[in-house]
Amino acid sequence: MSDLTVVISPRFYETDAQGHISNVSIVGWFEAARTSLLTRVLADDVSSQVQWMLANVNIDYLAETYFGSDVTIVLDKVTVGNTSLIMDCVMTQEGRECVRGRAVLVNIDPNSRKKQPVSDELRRKIQGLLPEA
Amino acid sequence: MSDLTVVISPRFYETDAQGHISNVSIVGWFEAARTSLLTRVLADDVSSQVQWMLANVNIDYLAETYFGSDVTIVLDKVTVGNTSLIMDCVMTQEGRECVRGRAVLVNIDPNSRKKQPVSDELRRKIQGLLPEA
Amino acid sequence: MSDLTVVISPRFYETDAQGHISNVSIVGWFEAARTSLLTRVLADDVSSQVQWMLANVNIDYLAETYFGSDVTIVLDKVTVGNTSLIMDCVMTQEGRECVRGRAVLVNIDPNSRKKQPVSDELRRKIQGLLPEA
Amino acid sequence: MSDLTVVISPRFYETDAQGHISNVSIVGWFEAARTSLLTRVLADDVSSQVQWMLANVNIDYLAETYFGSDVTIVLDKVTVGNTSLIMDCVMTQEGRECVRGRAVLVNIDPNSRKKQPVSDELRRKIQGLLPEA
Repeated sequence: MSDLTVVISPRFYETDAQGHISNVSIVGWFEAARTSLLTRVLADDVSSQVQWMLANVNIDYLAETYFGSDVTIVLDKVTVGNTSLIMDCVMTQEGRECVRGRAVLVNIDPNSRKKQPVSDELRRKIQGLLPEA
Repeated sequence: MSDLTVVISPRFYETDAQGHISNVSIVGWFEAARTSLLTRVLADDVSSQVQWMLANVNIDYLAETYFGSDVTIVLDKVTVGNTSLIMDCVMTQEGRECVRGRAVLVNIDPNSRKKQPVSDELRRKIQGLLPEA
Repeated sequence: MSDLTVVISPRFYETDAQGHISNVSIVGWFEAARTSLLTRVLADDVSSQVQWMLANVNIDYLAETYFGSDVTIVLDKVTVGNTSLIMDCVMTQEGRECVRGRAVLVNIDPNSRKKQPVSDELRRKIQGLLPEA
Repeated sequence: MSDLTVVISPRFYETDAQGHISNVSIVGWFEAARTSLLTRVLADDVSSQVQWMLANVNIDYLAETYFGSDVTIVLDKVTVGNTSLIMDCVMTQEGRECVRGRAVLVNIDPNSRKKQPVSDELRRKIQGLLPEA
């Protein structure tokens, strides 16, 4: 499993009465994947001066997701703006693409709670995550 | 409270360690609002032949939402397509707009599980929810 | 609705694939009821010097709870110990008793984070909630 | 990792505004552990004729559980009654015991939805999970 992959085992309470995984649970998985990916790639010295605030979440539900087999979440693309970070993830279950999610995060100064530009060091680390498109 | 408004009392477990309501909980509230709005406006004879499948959710987190005071969710706009329904909602807490959410739902035949056109009767009911823009 | 009653409208995502409300969601409702009850009855001057830590939750699932009609949660009994508070609640849906929950909370000094005796004033307030058994 | 252990990576949305994992999230983990344990040990031919209904959950919160390191859930004891199954689990984080949970499950005939005695075959399989006390 690469640094860019998170595996989720669906839990029974994450289903709903339609018999598959609730759209709400999937948003929780997406947060878990983002948090895990950001934690793995950001060195402690960098992350201590950075906080990310979620500004937007956009989720395409492409196919139903079920209880009973693992879901793989892969970071598909990252885009670093002046003060923002866009993360695109894809969720797959048994080889079938079932969800695509995009999150827009804003880089916040932990003290002032205001937007701050992404530092060059942080930008390089994030852009180094994925091969150039 | 009109037919187009849903009130949510935030629950303590819906907060996270940042001290405000989790982005995931808000997606749950949005589903609760949509379900409640659709249930109130659709007569039973119509709804029994219709099922809505969620295709996309897009949420702007505009300001932090807190535990301790009610959140009002208002249906801002509905758009009926050939087989789809787009619902735009706004969440407000203490007069402050904190979240805007858009959901795209697809009209499904409950038996065949395939997309079906929105019937004229259903279209009129939904469009009658809000004054013409 | 009395000060000792909390009403919950089940949300669709709180169901699971067995078609009724998940046991996990019910534990969330129980927390929401306890929080609401404690907030209503404790004056601000008292509650600011008190924090409750949950030590035990014990839940009897007596009958299935469904999406589609409100659930009423009533405080059935409170017992004040030296440093603890026991709250017994009953959940009813359409006149049918479906859940009984008991929570043991410990009274914590917010500064030292240690157990502290329940003050006489707080004890009187809590015991005044319900008629003598 | 033995068949009797389940590992959970806490997710950020599972925390609450007190800064640690919500008591409600822990009940979800407990269900996930029970489901995983029962799935691993019950052969398909047996489990297809059996359904477990949760009758009681009893949870001791012994110490705070945090975001940021894994939680190990171990099946500590199983007790098979005539129609019931009692599962005792212990949750540990960084070597510190933080939660003990007991669940009482009732063996249901999937067709009639009534209690049924635990078959001898199923009893042996469950009792074989743990060494004799």
